[in-house]
Amino acid sequence: MDQINKTFKTLKKKYDAGQNPLDEIGVLAQQCINRLCNNTRELDYKSLGQKHYYVLADQELSRPFRKDLFIMNAEDFRLKWQQLLAARGDCKFNLSDTDINKVVYTAVMSFAMCFDIWKNKSRKTPGTFFEVVLGSLIAFILPQGFTRTKFIPLIQAEVADIDGSSEAAQVGIGDDAEAVEDSGNVSTDIVFKINDAKSLVIPAKTTTRERVVQPFAHQRILDSFFGEGVYVSLLCCVSETQRDDDDVKVNDICVPNTIKLFQKHLAKMGGIFYLDPPARYLTLNGENGLKVGTIGALLCSDLNEIIELHGA
Amino acid sequence: MDQINKTFKTLKKKYDAGQNPLDEIGVLAQQCINRLCNNTRELDYKSLGQKHYYVLADQELSRPFRKDLFIMNAEDFRLKWQQLLAARGDCKFNLSDTDINKVVYTAVMSFAMCFDIWKNKSRKTPGTFFEVVLGSLIAFILPQGFTRTKFIPLIQAEVADIDGSSEAAQVGIGDDAEAVEDSGNVSTDIVFKINDAKSLVIPAKTTTRERVVQPFAHQRILDSFFGEGVYVSLLCCVSETQRDDDDVKVNDICVPNTIKLFQKHLAKMGGIFYLDPPARYLTLNGENGLKVGTIGALLCSDLNEIIELHGA
Repeated sequence: MDQINKTFKTLKKKYDAGQNPLDEIGVLAQQCINRLCNNTRELDYKSLGQKHYYVLADQELSRPFRKDLFIMNAEDFRLKWQQLLAARGDCKFNLSDTDINKVVYTAVMSFAMCFDIWKNKSRKTPGTFFEVVLGSLIAFILPQGFTRTKFIPLIQAEVADIDGSSEAAQVGIGDDAEAVEDSGNVSTDIVFKINDAKSLVIPAKTTTRERVVQPFAHQRILDSFFGEGVYVSLLCCVSETQRDDDDVKVNDICVPNTIKLFQKHLAKMGGIFYLDPPARYLTLNGENGLKVGTIGALLCSDLNEIIELHGA
Repeated sequence: MDQINKTFKTLKKKYDAGQNPLDEIGVLAQQCINRLCNNTRELDYKSLGQKHYYVLADQELSRPFRKDLFIMNAEDFRLKWQQLLAARGDCKFNLSDTDINKVVYTAVMSFAMCFDIWKNKSRKTPGTFFEVVLGSLIAFILPQGFTRTKFIPLIQAEVADIDGSSEAAQVGIGDDAEAVEDSGNVSTDIVFKINDAKSLVIPAKTTTRERVVQPFAHQRILDSFFGEGVYVSLLCCVSETQRDDDDVKVNDICVPNTIKLFQKHLAKMGGIFYLDPPARYLTLNGENGLKVGTIGALLCSDLNEIIELHGA
């Protein structure tokens, strides 16, 4: 795990400096796939609807994963990742949604599963890696001139702190959850400014659970602060699966009716995209202007449409 | 703990049946205080501003507590609890905010600390007990005719479930967080209907952390669905403290600027009340119509004012 950790830290530094460390992401995923292939035993968990899940085990258990989405061979992955990078187009990758979704799923999940099994204490790191992969891939296909940030500054407020002195505080979307994060889940935003009148907000979360209210609330605040339509939120997630070891099965934790309610009465999100979408969320596609689909579909066509619609 | 658990289950059943099991709450708190006094050792944690915290230890460590708020003697508690119930007034208790706050803090915390130390797996139970205490006390002082529920039904929707069949689904405030609760924190609402045009929503949470967005988002949805002013939200919490064992100290996890932002751009809450209020939140009192204070103050005067303001 030392090598994996080192590769991750190097590419994270590059990402934070505004680069897209896509080659390093490919190398890291290969390291993770190799480690998983050579050091774990496989457990068969029951199917969930059409989806069949497995868990890898060594020191600890991994999160559940789908074999039909996971490329279980480092060399196969390397070729598919090369193919993806070669398919760079104008606000899209010229590859099928299925092919894109598989290779991104493998990159994100191989790293997350290594951390589950051998570095269980670093709970936030897999979410951070997901953000880096997504932010790098999207930045890679956007035209020159887009700027990527992690933060939308809203207010410069003079606030009195505990002992009565005052300090300038910056409040923004994305900072509250990070400041008080204590549940092991990562909540960060990738922000792309298209032009002065339009920006994309991309909250990246491994799962949403009860925190699905956050991106809707943030969209509402952005609408209130900047006017409706300036920011378009595209929520990107890995899955909503939960491992049930007692019954050796996997659950999808979903609240489709709550999402309907939020989309209607809280704020309008542009879309929700998953690497492993829960079936009950896919049925929400089209609900009050909400797109729901795979991250593969986002990267091969939906992003392009959304950006054209909002005038890049 | 068997006796404590049994007393809790009995009173919870009564509460769920619409009663106010205030005598049983008093008995349960005495059982908890006795158990804590006789079976734990005390650890001194550092001060946080003006507040000094202690932790009780046996099987596990308790959450941090303030001795200046905690009545560490079962007989003293019994008398104070009797005094509280005897001070029943019209939408208020005729007792000082300090006295009310202490006795309620002791009831809620003694039970929570017993669970921390001897029944650490039942993480949601202390939050449920807080809700029962608060719901019972408020119902006890409200005039006849108020109805208490846990749920605001919003939509009767026909939704297709996974396998294509359809079922009637009820979506409401309070259900999303419960359905997907997996972080060990309890998020439930107490709802009091004042009249056809006014209701109080009282989200009861032991701490808010990053979930403080929820009551604001819910208020926004209620405003959108029923019109502004029909529902008044009063968020009630125990504390925002976090035990730091490495440095043997206690932290207040606060996001005052985020709350300012939510109050201005997400929705207007009526008030936020704590048994152990963080200093940085008390400075928000008056911000955009937001009352911030102790639960003692809520029960001795603020609730009365709020209800008069909104016409009981």
